Amino acid sequence: MSQPEGSAASPLAIRAIDVIRKKRDGRELSRQEIEYLVRAYTGGDIPDYQVSAWLMAVILRGLSKAETSWLTDAMLRSGDVLDLSEFVAKKVDKHSTGGVGDKTSLILAPLAAAGGLIVPMISGRGLAHTGGTLDKLESIPGFNVNLSVFQFRGVLEACGCAMIGQTAEIAPADRKLYALRDVTATVESPYLICASIMSKKLAEGIDGLVLDVKTGSGAFMKEEKDAAFLAELMVETGERMGKSVVALITDMDQPLGLKIGNSLEVMESIEILRGHGPADLRDLCLELGAWMFYLGAKATSPSEGKVLATHLLESRQALEKFRRMVSLQGGDQAIVDDPGLLSQARHTLEVVSPASGFVSAIACEAVGTAGVILGGGRERKEDSVDPSVGIVLHRKVGDKVSSGGPLYTVHYNDETRAARAADLLGNSFQIAATPPVVRPLVHRVIRGSGGA
Amino acid sequence: MSQPEGSAASPLAIRAIDVIRKKRDGRELSRQEIEYLVRAYTGGDIPDYQVSAWLMAVILRGLSKAETSWLTDAMLRSGDVLDLSEFVAKKVDKHSTGGVGDKTSLILAPLAAAGGLIVPMISGRGLAHTGGTLDKLESIPGFNVNLSVFQFRGVLEACGCAMIGQTAEIAPADRKLYALRDVTATVESPYLICASIMSKKLAEGIDGLVLDVKTGSGAFMKEEKDAAFLAELMVETGERMGKSVVALITDMDQPLGLKIGNSLEVMESIEILRGHGPADLRDLCLELGAWMFYLGAKATSPSEGKVLATHLLESRQALEKFRRMVSLQGGDQAIVDDPGLLSQARHTLEVVSPASGFVSAIACEAVGTAGVILGGGRERKEDSVDPSVGIVLHRKVGDKVSSGGPLYTVHYNDETRAARAADLLGNSFQIAATPPVVRPLVHRVIRGSGGA
Repeated sequence: MSQPEGSAASPLAIRAIDVIRKKRDGRELSRQEIEYLVRAYTGGDIPDYQVSAWLMAVILRGLSKAETSWLTDAMLRSGDVLDLSEFVAKKVDKHSTGGVGDKTSLILAPLAAAGGLIVPMISGRGLAHTGGTLDKLESIPGFNVNLSVFQFRGVLEACGCAMIGQTAEIAPADRKLYALRDVTATVESPYLICASIMSKKLAEGIDGLVLDVKTGSGAFMKEEKDAAFLAELMVETGERMGKSVVALITDMDQPLGLKIGNSLEVMESIEILRGHGPADLRDLCLELGAWMFYLGAKATSPSEGKVLATHLLESRQALEKFRRMVSLQGGDQAIVDDPGLLSQARHTLEVVSPASGFVSAIACEAVGTAGVILGGGRERKEDSVDPSVGIVLHRKVGDKVSSGGPLYTVHYNDETRAARAADLLGNSFQIAATPPVVRPLVHRVIRGSGGA
Repeated sequence: MSQPEGSAASPLAIRAIDVIRKKRDGRELSRQEIEYLVRAYTGGDIPDYQVSAWLMAVILRGLSKAETSWLTDAMLRSGDVLDLSEFVAKKVDKHSTGGVGDKTSLILAPLAAAGGLIVPMISGRGLAHTGGTLDKLESIPGFNVNLSVFQFRGVLEACGCAMIGQTAEIAPADRKLYALRDVTATVESPYLICASIMSKKLAEGIDGLVLDVKTGSGAFMKEEKDAAFLAELMVETGERMGKSVVALITDMDQPLGLKIGNSLEVMESIEILRGHGPADLRDLCLELGAWMFYLGAKATSPSEGKVLATHLLESRQALEKFRRMVSLQGGDQAIVDDPGLLSQARHTLEVVSPASGFVSAIACEAVGTAGVILGGGRERKEDSVDPSVGIVLHRKVGDKVSSGGPLYTVHYNDETRAARAADLLGNSFQIAATPPVVRPLVHRVIRGSGGA
């Protein structure tokens, strides 16, 4: 029977095959073993086929909390870690696990900066049915998300917040591992997701991090227990690495706000920054902002932080920060006063309710996928994004609606895409005779034992 | 959160990532999915890194019996399957999962051929601490194990048995998969081991197969339950593919016979073929031969087969077949009458018992490893094998021994290697005051439901 022990090696050297075997057999790896694997893989000394076997063993055997933090740390240290120690104020960021209509980053970065924090935000693009902050920012004419680290610092110095995409220098191990996970069915592991998110976020050189972990039909984690598991893992990992971290489990069972689509979401963000806009989006921004101020020592409690956040929205100080950031990053600041300057779709189609009653559910992932199909996201990696298309909701869960009354409007440029999106949207609203129980916006707040 | 669904594809096409994901999630693959994976991997259309992730998922999730037989069949059909239908007699082979001192193949091939069966035996080399049939055959001066298929048929026609190594045409999928398993810690799976063994054996175009599945301290499967699980899987896989298969779970808690080492084992095989030799080795050959004759319809029961096998040994008809095969494959047939012509080590060292009593255990894997260290096997893949070295036992488990009485003799050429081997052998014999319970030679016989 064919069972060789592998080729001989010095007892002192760590060998990839032994690390794979150890995880395969469900044993805890040492910090040295994890560091070796990440460093040697990033350096090209371990082939993809060994790391993919290890990743599958991690998917099926899991990692301990210690292993997760060692993995995060090794990935973080595979590239540059920003040193923002020249800033006296606390550096605080926010990260969302992704949802539909979630444009809170566009509001929170200037809001937190207006309150005196430094927000060095590195964001991503849309994935699957969810939108991406970079795609939304790029719907602002001229806005450049590809700043050098030097330019990034300059914007931070000038206005306290800056928003860019991941650079080649930040966590290259994550970039390489993520590409491999994507093609080997090893994406869906809370341990690997935690290490991927936290390694990139902690490379920003921040002191504190507010995590918005989504749960519900439009989230990647449909079940709250899965969201909570990931949230706890990320909080503990961040705290093991000396950061103040809090996670809010928030609702993504229906889209956030009323607008889905890149230009449309920038418009809605400006509405919020002007002190208006939909209540759920505004409330979530105030909750997340409150925690950012608390972690960043601008408030002695989250509730004091919420008062500060509310003031910064109503006084339009956050709006002015946003205007400044847009301008500094090459964007056309005229859109702040006249959002109609943003790219708009050529056609709209209003869809009405077939019955009277209450909206009892909105199939959130279907709405997100419809937005992608319209051209607002990518069906294939090489697709370009159409900033102007999207969906505007006229009713949300719990709202009363009359037969023939407006439910939502589709903004589109291409008839074929619109027809495919309409198919998906057709069954996405459920109308019931009685009002539904509306889920809370914030399900839980998860803090570590050694919090700020 | 980063969880793409992978790139879009036609719903009709099977994609490697979906096959990986399905097995990762513990679901049963279809025959088409397994065939696709094996064919596309062998053809170079799926990269190593996807297959290694799939292999790890198989290790941790297992395969059903149906999946195992589909995998075996796909690997078998990745290359040539010998068509031996021109032979009227039944084609029957034997396969051992590997042990220490196991030279039964050298005896059984000519024994079964002497009884009128066709034995197209394709064998392997030593692995880890176990010996390999090809290495033993090559200790016969001139013996050629690298015959073309044409030459192989010729030897079969002339004497009924032939013994060669695996060719490039036989089960290339196994060759490629095995190389990948070896470096990704995905060797130790009964499903993958079964598919590897059975795909190669069934490519020989045989009607029946006797499996010798070893258990004990010198076997790869130390526990009888693991050996039985593998045996049942192989029997069922073979029967699903229309072959008559039986598995004997046999003891490998001490070396088989008295001689370990390539030339030494050829010598001991000739002793048996002359009607002499150690009882355990002779008995196992008679048991396995009995089943070969029963599966090959040369006997109406295994016990009738054993009578035939005994007669063929005692009448030296098996010895004459061996002589003929050696001659046809280019070997020096003079060794049959004068085994002293085989290569012999320059030095010997006799080791005596430190105490009086009974041999209660022999550390079988340690003895095998000592044989490898002496040069009888390979510590690294590129090592060459020294045919002359080895170990000759003077006592086996249950034997009485006096203080200062001989336990074993080491045959060596290199002092350094001998010292390393002696270290290992030093603690390998246990001596007790009372006689031990001796394990049976054949633990169990495992047959399928639809057997011959």
